[in-house]
Amino acid sequence: MKRHLTFALAFAALGCGTAVYAQEDFSAQLKARQGQFRIMAINLGILGGMAKGEIEYNAEAAQAAADTLVAVSMIQQGPMWPEGSDDMSIDGTRAQTTIWEENDDFLSKWMDFGTGAAAMQAAAGGGQAALGPAMGQIGGTCKACHDKHRAPAN
Amino acid sequence: MKRHLTFALAFAALGCGTAVYAQEDFSAQLKARQGQFRIMAINLGILGGMAKGEIEYNAEAAQAAADTLVAVSMIQQGPMWPEGSDDMSIDGTRAQTTIWEENDDFLSKWMDFGTGAAAMQAAAGGGQAALGPAMGQIGGTCKACHDKHRAPAN
Repeated sequence: MKRHLTFALAFAALGCGTAVYAQEDFSAQLKARQGQFRIMAINLGILGGMAKGEIEYNAEAAQAAADTLVAVSMIQQGPMWPEGSDDMSIDGTRAQTTIWEENDDFLSKWMDFGTGAAAMQAAAGGGQAALGPAMGQIGGTCKACHDKHRAPAN
Repeated sequence: MKRHLTFALAFAALGCGTAVYAQEDFSAQLKARQGQFRIMAINLGILGGMAKGEIEYNAEAAQAAADTLVAVSMIQQGPMWPEGSDDMSIDGTRAQTTIWEENDDFLSKWMDFGTGAAAMQAAAGGGQAALGPAMGQIGGTCKACHDKHRAPAN
């Protein structure tokens, strides 16, 4: 603790200020929520590949991917997004402070993803033609949240 | 590609051999599956904390955590565990080759987690006393899979 404090004071003296001093270790939460988005990306990759004809359509695989998107949409978000785990406070995240400042909007956009996932779940096993429109709906929900709540990549 | 090959040959010349040459980039799959386990750990932490009385029991929060465990148990595992993403082939994972050699056992143990999560879901909102036994059941399924399919920490 003393050593921690010494470092904090040294950083403060260098002008790095309170952000460094207050930085908590949110690595578990970051890995959890970023892992969640990887799971979504992997399964959207399967469905998108089939929609574009780059992967041969397989009803069972498409259904499993869509079911997984619905499963992810049922994961509670709160515990993975603690206050102070935004990109102004810590490294390793592109989560903007708007997530906390406009949390209802953030959660509403997450629910829109769930609605899109449910539409995909209803369509995915019924043939390749339905995948494109369902992907479009889901992609729109991803973009809406990223545009509002995710910082641009460096 | 040429540069990749040059590095591979250089490594081979240094005696690092085929493992380096053949190593694929499974970072997305590793982040996805490790993130999944973080989501489980965060929510088991909530339920375990309440079971031990370290966190005040809250029926709504307990139910949300249990619901999330069930949601995670519904995520298809296959696409996150590609062949060659074991701890003998790549860095950054403790996944043992038994996951692929005895895949039915691995998936059966994963389903046991789902059964435990469902039991927790049925119990979590009904009072603090039910959390301990349900945690014990889930913990047993975690341990069974780790003992068999996860390499010890270094």
